[in-house]
Amino acid sequence: MSEFSKIGLVGRLGSEAAYYSLQRLILFLQKQGVELYLDEQTAASAPVTRLPRLERDALADQCDLVIVVGGDGSLLSTARSMCRTGVPLLGINRGRLGFLTDILPEEIERKVGAVLEGKYVAERRFLLDCHVYRDGQLMSSGTALNDVVLHPGEYIRMIEFELYIDQEFVYRQRSDGLIISTPTGSTAYALSVGGPIMHPGLDAVVVVPLNPHTLSSRPIVVHGDSEIKVVVGDLRDIRPHVTCDGQTHQVTTVGDEIVVRKKVEHLCLIHPQDHDFYEICRTKLGWASHSNNGFD
Amino acid sequence: MSEFSKIGLVGRLGSEAAYYSLQRLILFLQKQGVELYLDEQTAASAPVTRLPRLERDALADQCDLVIVVGGDGSLLSTARSMCRTGVPLLGINRGRLGFLTDILPEEIERKVGAVLEGKYVAERRFLLDCHVYRDGQLMSSGTALNDVVLHPGEYIRMIEFELYIDQEFVYRQRSDGLIISTPTGSTAYALSVGGPIMHPGLDAVVVVPLNPHTLSSRPIVVHGDSEIKVVVGDLRDIRPHVTCDGQTHQVTTVGDEIVVRKKVEHLCLIHPQDHDFYEICRTKLGWASHSNNGFD
Amino acid sequence: MSEFSKIGLVGRLGSEAAYYSLQRLILFLQKQGVELYLDEQTAASAPVTRLPRLERDALADQCDLVIVVGGDGSLLSTARSMCRTGVPLLGINRGRLGFLTDILPEEIERKVGAVLEGKYVAERRFLLDCHVYRDGQLMSSGTALNDVVLHPGEYIRMIEFELYIDQEFVYRQRSDGLIISTPTGSTAYALSVGGPIMHPGLDAVVVVPLNPHTLSSRPIVVHGDSEIKVVVGDLRDIRPHVTCDGQTHQVTTVGDEIVVRKKVEHLCLIHPQDHDFYEICRTKLGWASHSNNGFD
Amino acid sequence: MSEFSKIGLVGRLGSEAAYYSLQRLILFLQKQGVELYLDEQTAASAPVTRLPRLERDALADQCDLVIVVGGDGSLLSTARSMCRTGVPLLGINRGRLGFLTDILPEEIERKVGAVLEGKYVAERRFLLDCHVYRDGQLMSSGTALNDVVLHPGEYIRMIEFELYIDQEFVYRQRSDGLIISTPTGSTAYALSVGGPIMHPGLDAVVVVPLNPHTLSSRPIVVHGDSEIKVVVGDLRDIRPHVTCDGQTHQVTTVGDEIVVRKKVEHLCLIHPQDHDFYEICRTKLGWASHSNNGFD
Repeated sequence: MSEFSKIGLVGRLGSEAAYYSLQRLILFLQKQGVELYLDEQTAASAPVTRLPRLERDALADQCDLVIVVGGDGSLLSTARSMCRTGVPLLGINRGRLGFLTDILPEEIERKVGAVLEGKYVAERRFLLDCHVYRDGQLMSSGTALNDVVLHPGEYIRMIEFELYIDQEFVYRQRSDGLIISTPTGSTAYALSVGGPIMHPGLDAVVVVPLNPHTLSSRPIVVHGDSEIKVVVGDLRDIRPHVTCDGQTHQVTTVGDEIVVRKKVEHLCLIHPQDHDFYEICRTKLGWASHSNNGFD
Repeated sequence: MSEFSKIGLVGRLGSEAAYYSLQRLILFLQKQGVELYLDEQTAASAPVTRLPRLERDALADQCDLVIVVGGDGSLLSTARSMCRTGVPLLGINRGRLGFLTDILPEEIERKVGAVLEGKYVAERRFLLDCHVYRDGQLMSSGTALNDVVLHPGEYIRMIEFELYIDQEFVYRQRSDGLIISTPTGSTAYALSVGGPIMHPGLDAVVVVPLNPHTLSSRPIVVHGDSEIKVVVGDLRDIRPHVTCDGQTHQVTTVGDEIVVRKKVEHLCLIHPQDHDFYEICRTKLGWASHSNNGFD
Repeated sequence: MSEFSKIGLVGRLGSEAAYYSLQRLILFLQKQGVELYLDEQTAASAPVTRLPRLERDALADQCDLVIVVGGDGSLLSTARSMCRTGVPLLGINRGRLGFLTDILPEEIERKVGAVLEGKYVAERRFLLDCHVYRDGQLMSSGTALNDVVLHPGEYIRMIEFELYIDQEFVYRQRSDGLIISTPTGSTAYALSVGGPIMHPGLDAVVVVPLNPHTLSSRPIVVHGDSEIKVVVGDLRDIRPHVTCDGQTHQVTTVGDEIVVRKKVEHLCLIHPQDHDFYEICRTKLGWASHSNNGFD
Repeated sequence: MSEFSKIGLVGRLGSEAAYYSLQRLILFLQKQGVELYLDEQTAASAPVTRLPRLERDALADQCDLVIVVGGDGSLLSTARSMCRTGVPLLGINRGRLGFLTDILPEEIERKVGAVLEGKYVAERRFLLDCHVYRDGQLMSSGTALNDVVLHPGEYIRMIEFELYIDQEFVYRQRSDGLIISTPTGSTAYALSVGGPIMHPGLDAVVVVPLNPHTLSSRPIVVHGDSEIKVVVGDLRDIRPHVTCDGQTHQVTTVGDEIVVRKKVEHLCLIHPQDHDFYEICRTKLGWASHSNNGFD
């Protein structure tokens, strides 16, 4: 009997392909004799299935595994809403390899089957808490698995802010904004902006300036327990936005303090046993592999 | 008698410092026996002077030199509105050296005096025309001395587009946008985003991707007479914006064609005779100069 | 009758594959009734053919087309040695697409055939002259189609030098060296070091610093007729090397002046009519193409 | 009585300035009643002092503090030779602020005095062991506080190698080489090559490719306990060199394995109490500080 007997299903079902993958997954899981629950939102967009439905909170509480069918974006939002409970997540991508959803549709039976038999790798990924304070009052909170981004909101206009790491002043900067990224996020937006790749197991956070006016401003990697504080400056009445994983938005004003630190709760991410972080890098980034005949 | 006998004055007078510089300039010019005209908008924010006022169009038509007191931004907007007439522009910066406004307040008498005596360098800078077409219809036009920027408009979200240069397909790209920059703009926003510095006299345009998803996407430098066309793609209902010199905004939709090419009219920019492009680079970018005692 | 009736053949024949391509080319050309001459060096490494042989200089003088079988490196060295005469060059790559050698082995009959029928595009590429002066005396000269590189020679150690462009002082720099690249070279070494891509038809040269100590030091693009002068500095007795196209080496000493300017003679490079610079970029750099069904 | 009663002195005395700083330091320390020993090598280049001399090994064994007068390079070599013993190091720079030698000559009495009174910050910095294996045999070993660099040795020519991190294959790469850097080294050579800044306290190592042919190859940050292995490839008979802190050189050949991991022994680096890592970054990299009157 599998340690995973109650399984929740979440999907982003905008396409035929994703719907097909979900059906294939349900068929397979039903044969394994596990209890299945469908996320209420997912059900609303895929009404044909007769599985019992649960709100996302209940799903996270009652299941011992949640499988996400979709892209890395679907897994990001599921992780943010469920990390509270510690329920492990497994990702099935609808098409191509993702950094977070690394089972392909045609591998569903073989790889999900292996996971149910206990053949898997569990990885602990940390998330970020983002709090915005105005005059000492908490204005809003957010959670990010990938990154917290400060940006101008409307248009592309230079913003100004001060950066503090662990209460130490780092710099005052004019730029298009700032990315505060986990190792998980280091292969996402931060990479496009010039940040380094960080191994998923590293306990570190990287702060990456977005097109800084000062050309010598570079990504800074600090310990994962660091407190990152950004104080919003006053440049031409721009009201910068704070965004978590590219999905939530908070408008700030001059003097606001954005405080980012590691979340107490972690994500437990399940991978097939042959999961290979660097292979995903090679595939997605076009790095060269071994030649067949050695070096030539 | 100076070749410049009718001089127009334009300023961005938000600060005491700028107002003082304008007053100092007017005092000096009045002693030189030239006719002075004040830009109507400028006059509205600096009501004390009794100079005759002209709308910006009339100013450009009737004067044989226009002096701009302000930052590079003031000169950009004056250049866009006056390039039609070919009237030469001279820039006085309110504080520190600019790439376009390279006379400092304390140098007004000496350097403006020299210019009036014919001791100056005239530089021809080209501008860009930007046209947005929808279903073959012209939707809007813009002019840029620095750059035309395609960006997501609201939030920081990936946009998708296709790039064509002189009718040849270059690539389809997902990124934060695209900068099309003149040599003049190459030391402004394009530089923060990783573009090369182009000598002001070079007849070339650079296309710089903004944080592209494909890491091998690089700035491309092409001839100044090239036609750059960007076709807006369809990614999650985002409606990218087109911005000229960071100051005008046009909202686009999927299928819109943004066509950028060199403007027929040029800007005639006047510099003091000791103008040195690389010295401004060294000062503003912190490049090392000669050591006093050679290399050590 | 083809305008190309006397054809010279040059190859880099280190591999079976290249030898096979040369044989296939010879077979095809012999059927076309053209006179063939084999480069003496090439013949030495491929003794089986009975074609008449000529030294490289004579080959360039007597032929009206030279076909190079090999990689971009073979074409670079042939171009340097033959540009004096203006003989056009056509490149056949032994395996994958090159920027200069853009006919693949399996296309030999079809594409070389078309060229002989006059269906081709001729492109003018400029080269660089590099002169090293010591105390006013010319020490050595070199020619480059791609780039002139100043580097530490042995080990990776910082060198120091001063850069002048058209007699204007640009900066004093400490770095691993400097690349002065043509548009042709802009997709080669200069690209790895952060230089922009320049369209092959652009009349410009880019100066790219190699890992500069000053992070704000950036590539500078100037007119192709510019004179670039580098004066070697005195840092810990290092004697920097000057290299043309990665193939020739000249050792310098403190105070030496390296002067680089456009060569009077040009290369005439022949391409098949479907030659597409941006397609080669897409293939070699992994840029995205059109999706089949538009944007999705 | 200070906890530091036996103090060793090491200097790089090539200049008048350094010699003066050493004399000033000796005068001050003699008044404090501590025992002083001079490094034998240092003494050879500064013969006037009558202090007792010790070989570097004996100095490290017998002293409870070693003060280095010189640049970061002097401290690097002292650290490599003394880390075995755990003796703490304090650095005095001869001129400008260094990342490792952060007491200026004019601060000697005040800041060294404070250190002797126990007012200091002790920082633990890790070093790297570098072993080169050929056919399973250890060929050579080295120690680095900043970085281990693989590079072509002579000329600038592309080399090829395979990278493994913790026994996992990462990529095969063609480039100018590879830098494996500690947090200490992340503000040195690795920064010029595009690596991120890592906080000195971070337990991580960064692997930075040197001008890679594959543009998507990026710096990778991994845990400080990782084993980094590079296997030398076979490209045109080039024999790459391995260099520790830019100071030692080992020639490799095809198939050699370069294994880099954290050294068991650490460096104990002493700073004045007002030591501020980010302030040194701001000063040396030209980052902007607070404005006096907030943001304007």
